[in-house]
Order: sequence, then structure tokens, then C-alpha cells
Amino acid sequence: MPGPIALLTDFGLADPYVGQMRGVLAGLAPGVPVLDLCHGVEPYNLPQGAFFLASSLEHYPAGTVFAAIVDPEVGTARRIVAVLAAGRTVLAPDNGLAGLVLARSEGVRAFDLTAHAGAPGVSATFHGRDVFAPLAARIALGEAPQSLGPEMDPATLVRPAWVEPAWNADRREARATVLNVDRFGNCVLNLCGGPWAGRLCCAGPLAACVDGGGALDVFPARTYADLGLGQVGLLEGSQGYLELCCNQASAAQALGARSGCAVALSVAGGRA
Amino acid sequence: MPGPIALLTDFGLADPYVGQMRGVLAGLAPGVPVLDLCHGVEPYNLPQGAFFLASSLEHYPAGTVFAAIVDPEVGTARRIVAVLAAGRTVLAPDNGLAGLVLARSEGVRAFDLTAHAGAPGVSATFHGRDVFAPLAARIALGEAPQSLGPEMDPATLVRPAWVEPAWNADRREARATVLNVDRFGNCVLNLCGGPWAGRLCCAGPLAACVDGGGALDVFPARTYADLGLGQVGLLEGSQGYLELCCNQASAAQALGARSGCAVALSVAGGRA
Amino acid sequence: MPGPIALLTDFGLADPYVGQMRGVLAGLAPGVPVLDLCHGVEPYNLPQGAFFLASSLEHYPAGTVFAAIVDPEVGTARRIVAVLAAGRTVLAPDNGLAGLVLARSEGVRAFDLTAHAGAPGVSATFHGRDVFAPLAARIALGEAPQSLGPEMDPATLVRPAWVEPAWNADRREARATVLNVDRFGNCVLNLCGGPWAGRLCCAGPLAACVDGGGALDVFPARTYADLGLGQVGLLEGSQGYLELCCNQASAAQALGARSGCAVALSVAGGRA
Repeated sequence: MPGPIALLTDFGLADPYVGQMRGVLAGLAPGVPVLDLCHGVEPYNLPQGAFFLASSLEHYPAGTVFAAIVDPEVGTARRIVAVLAAGRTVLAPDNGLAGLVLARSEGVRAFDLTAHAGAPGVSATFHGRDVFAPLAARIALGEAPQSLGPEMDPATLVRPAWVEPAWNADRREARATVLNVDRFGNCVLNLCGGPWAGRLCCAGPLAACVDGGGALDVFPARTYADLGLGQVGLLEGSQGYLELCCNQASAAQALGARSGCAVALSVAGGRA
Repeated sequence: MPGPIALLTDFGLADPYVGQMRGVLAGLAPGVPVLDLCHGVEPYNLPQGAFFLASSLEHYPAGTVFAAIVDPEVGTARRIVAVLAAGRTVLAPDNGLAGLVLARSEGVRAFDLTAHAGAPGVSATFHGRDVFAPLAARIALGEAPQSLGPEMDPATLVRPAWVEPAWNADRREARATVLNVDRFGNCVLNLCGGPWAGRLCCAGPLAACVDGGGALDVFPARTYADLGLGQVGLLEGSQGYLELCCNQASAAQALGARSGCAVALSVAGGRA
Repeated sequence: MPGPIALLTDFGLADPYVGQMRGVLAGLAPGVPVLDLCHGVEPYNLPQGAFFLASSLEHYPAGTVFAAIVDPEVGTARRIVAVLAAGRTVLAPDNGLAGLVLARSEGVRAFDLTAHAGAPGVSATFHGRDVFAPLAARIALGEAPQSLGPEMDPATLVRPAWVEPAWNADRREARATVLNVDRFGNCVLNLCGGPWAGRLCCAGPLAACVDGGGALDVFPARTYADLGLGQVGLLEGSQGYLELCCNQASAAQALGARSGCAVALSVAGGRA
């Protein structure tokens, strides 16, 4: 069976845009499963979209073709690329949307498919339907990315600053970015679970500062129910990144955090 | 063809959680239809989730496997169960989410699948993806629930107070709970259509009190267009439960009602 | 393969209504792809629903059966019709929802399927699930609309005033309606791209008045990035209609526009 196609956009579900992509795919690739990864990325929010993509990639079967569109520069000369990582293909504008996938993957290959935006009948404002969906259909049906455009050096792909957190060894402090505030108020940070959990989650309470504001105590936890009323926890969540959370309450509200803001997490006492 | 899988959660569609469940299911059960019953249950709102499940069950084909997740206690010792009712299988945490299905069904069987939460690689915070989706895939592909965990007495399943309304025969008054306020402002009550319509909808206007507030007249109706401007109606809706409604306006706003609030409905005059 | 079924409603995704339609279709037409065109039409907003339908029709494969339900008069004597246009079938209440499709199509045929609303077990309030979904399943599986109800004169179908914009040649002014404000704040007008672009987009800046308010300059553009900070543009968007837009900002906010409001667009100088 051809690999499924997974859609990730900032189009929302209140407009007909995603529905039109589904229609195009039903026509070009009948029988290929089309799955909605998510269409709730906030308009133009690249860190959030990059997180949704990177945290979901491995949960889709090998061979999945992702059409990922958060694309404020649609219609300009920005590149359209296919990134091959971990046995999946990601179609995306070259604007950092694939940045967290690149940071987590080895042996990545990339192809420049920008020329397809010049095909006849392509609108200037909706490449999701007119460029990405047709390309996804062709790849899902078996065409190799190398037959669709020239290979390019993955090192030339856009990698924004929010991809990498910083660690200040003297102050024993991590400077991170909130990638997403979810509907429960959990704040996902750009701190990969394994290594950062080792650094931050084993030494008792931490101090968290959001956007340079006052410090709040944060308690390492394994699950939401470990936390007392009003406590903010730091746990290695289900998304492969550390999360700030509360028990049946909103950590984002407790901390005054929102997607994109900066968080400093320092190990209590500050001694190395 | 294997039975479809239907997903019901309080995850919303703005985060990648549902998309990750879809990816896992595409990998484990390729070719099995996966349908979104709804992901718009308010966070942790068990009465609402229970209503969505109970009112939808019979509209899905026999053999459907429902993965129903509204699960504030995820990661704790709360049980995970498979409930067999009306030829369908419901996978849910044992917290009342299946309560209205139990109240409407006969010959129910139940199985304790809690042990699967201890499998390697299962996150502590996202059993929807790591436990419920894999179990749903296995059952949809033909494994019997009894091969996945021990049978248990359905009488031991959690049944919250909001499952059953009360009838005060002296005052000829029903005390009900609003299970859902829908996007049109209709208020669905935990009063099963048939029997309660017989009691309440044949005697002229009723008096409705929401959360102990002042009384409003409510008029039995068959469809929205039966109601005059500003009138609040009570009708046997399409969901199998009685609903308070207006004609192209919000009954919830007219009544000051929201999901979970108490409503007293008394037959006018109060005489038996 | 039988034609896919596409669903368009104002039911939203926070209630179980769409999920129940999916369940009914999975039972009646297993194996037929069911695609969500959109469920985010505002409650009762016929111009918006009509736009979603007309702009999406051609992006679905020939043979697609659309079940389109924005239906404030559900349960009354309003007609239910099947409209055959451009090789697709549209099932809808006869209330203008198919109005923009009729305005754009030639050789339309129509059939009156109202009688199916009287079938046993049909609720008075949810024809989407109980009438439209079963009819869509039958047509997708191969039944001809003519076998389901008598043919009718398409000229008798409801065509609301908002279907047609007006052109005042003396004042060189178009009087249009905002069909949709999308999540990015773009305002889609009921001005078909080709002909109206020729009239309005080639003569330098225009003056736009929303709902009779003050005039704002509007600049013809090809894509969002053509516009300077704070500028409002008019472009032939991807939907086949002219759109008012800004570059990474909300034109609706800049103009004070919302779905359904009136917009006058006059060619600068006002000379013919």
C-alpha cells in the first residue's frame, strides 16, 4: 500500500482550505490514506509548527509523506523542499518549519522542489492546495523526490535560533523557548527529554523565569497527579520534550507563558 | 472488513495529540477506517464525554471499536476497561465516561485491560496514543477483549451521580443535569427521550429553574420552527435525550445554562 | 471506485453531530471515502456556506457527492434537493446554499428529494444524519438522483440577493458582499476573479467603504508579500473570488469587516 499522506498546516478548520486539499488529494491519489496531523498551528507560528512536526514524525509509519505548510512568504522566492529523515518525507517551505526535525535526525537528505510553484494554474496564495498536495500525491504514489528536483545540501536549509536552547554552566541555567501551549495549559519547551531531563529533573525544585519576570518554583514530576494543588511541575512529557504543567490546571496561566516566549530554568542553589 | 475505529477525546484539534493517534493507528492497523467521533469534549468534562459516546454509539456500525479518552487521572492506578455493549466495544478509563452507555444497555460485558499501561515505552501522560490506540487496533483487527485482559463484573464500573436524573412525584418535578450545550445553544439534558417526553412534554408549558435561579416558561415542541421569537422549547431531539432549545437563538443564553449545571423542570400547576 | 462523499456543514467539530454522520456513512457505504470539506460555517450563515461549496466544488473529483447542510429551517416544509453541476452532485436544503454553484454553472439539473424527510425514524431536527447522509450514501454507491425523486426546474431553486454583486457604471463602483473572513483576516468578496479583476485591479488604488463607513485605499496585488506594512490589498485569491487582504495582518480588522457585510469598491477618480 502506498505510504499515507499526513497534513500539517496553520489553516485551521473553519475555512475551506484544508477541505480543498483533501479534494485535490482524493482526485490525484485515490486510495491513498490522507491523515490530518493537525491544522491548528497558530497563523505563521513556525516554532509551534516545527514542534508539531518533529514530535509526530516517528508516530507515523515509515514511508509517510508529510505536507507541512506554515508559509507566510507564500508566493515569494522562498524555497520549497523535500526533506528525507528517519524514513519519512517532509514537504515544506524552507523557512525553519523542518528545523526541529533536522536537529533530531541524522543522515538527512534534501531536494529543492521550488520549480513546481511555477507550474501553470498555480495560485500565488495557496501553495498548500496547488503545489504541496500534488507533490505529496506523486511521492506517495511512488515517485522519488530526486526525480522531482535537484538534491541540495541539508546544511543550507533554514535553521532558526529557537531550534537550539542554551545552557549556562556557571549559572546552571537552561534558556529555552516555549514551543507550544496546549489546550490543557501544558507548556512544551525546546528541551529534548532525555538529555535535558538528566540535567534538570534530578536535583529537586528548579526556579523558572518567564520572559525575564519573577522566579517561580517548579517541581520535577513523572505524571500530572504527582503534583499538589497549584504546584507547577516539569516532566518529560509524551512529546519527547520537557513540559511545564499543573495537575488539572493551566501551567501557562500560572506562569504567564505563551507559545514563543523565553523561559529560564535554573537548578536551585545555582552551584555546579 | 474489520470494524472501524472511532475516536472520542477531550484533546481538541489545535494540538498534535489526535494526529499522533491517527499516525499510530495507520501503522498498526493499515486499512482499518479510523473515524473521528469528536475531539471537542471540554477538558476533563466527563458528563459531556459520556453523552457524546452514548448518543453516538448506535449510529456507528456493529463491530465498531471506540477509543474514548477523557482521562484526568492518566498515569495513576485508575482502571482501563473494555465495555461490550450493543455489539460495539468501548475502550475507556473507568471513570464514568462509559456511564451513560451502561445506563442504556443490557447484557453488558466488561474486561480489565489496565495491565497494558505497564508495557515498555508507554508514556505516563498520553495513554490515548500509547495504550488506547494500540488496544483499539488489536481489537479492530480481530483480537477478542477476553484475550487482552480478565473479565470483570460490570456492576463494579464507576457510575457517577449525573447518570441518573431524579423525579419528585409530589412536586411533579424532574431534577436533571445539562450534559451538553451545543454550538447552537441547545441544552441536552440527561432525560432519555421516550419515557421523559411522556412525562414532561404532553401537559402544556413547564417551569424551568437553572441552578436554583428564577423560573422560566418552557414550551414542548417538535422542531425549532415551532417556537416563537424568544420562546424556550423542550423537545425530544435527535440525540435520544430531551433538549432545551430556541428558534435560531441560544437556549443556553436565555436560561444562563452551561454544561454540568442543574435544571429543575416542573409540570405547570404542580398537581399530579 | 465509487465517488467520494464530501461533507459541508455549520455543525462545528465541538459536538458529536459530524461524528454521527460519519458513523452512519461508515455503516451505509463502507469503503466509500468520506471527506470533510468543512464544518466551520458559522451557524445559519448561508452566504459563507455557499461560498465554501462553490469555491471547493471543482477541487473535488468528478463524481463527488456533496452533502451540504446549513439548514435553519430543518423540520419545516423547505425542500431538499439534489443539484447536478459540473459532474458533481450537491445535496442541500433549497435555501440558497447552492446559490453560488448555480451562478457559476451551466447545464445544471435538479431533483426534489424532499419526500425522504418523511421516512420512518427520521428526527425532526437532524436531517444531516437522518436524511442527507443516507441519500449521499445511496448516490455515492451508484443510485441515480432521478430514481430518488422527481426532476425539477433549476430556475425555481432559491437564489438569494447576495449571489450577485452590482456594478454602478456611472460611479465606477462595485457593490459587493463579504462572503467569508478567513482565519488570516482575508475578506473574500462575491466578485468572481476573472471578470471583476479586469474591471477593478488594473487601474491603481481603489477606495473601499465597508457598511457605508469611511473610505480606505486598497491596492491591487498579486500576492500578500507585494503589500507594504499596513496596506490593504485586493487580489485575485485562490478561491476564484477577489479578496481584500493584508501582509501577515488582518484585513478584516483594518477594514472593520465581517462575513455578510457590504463593501463598495470604487475605481479611484470615479471617471469612466
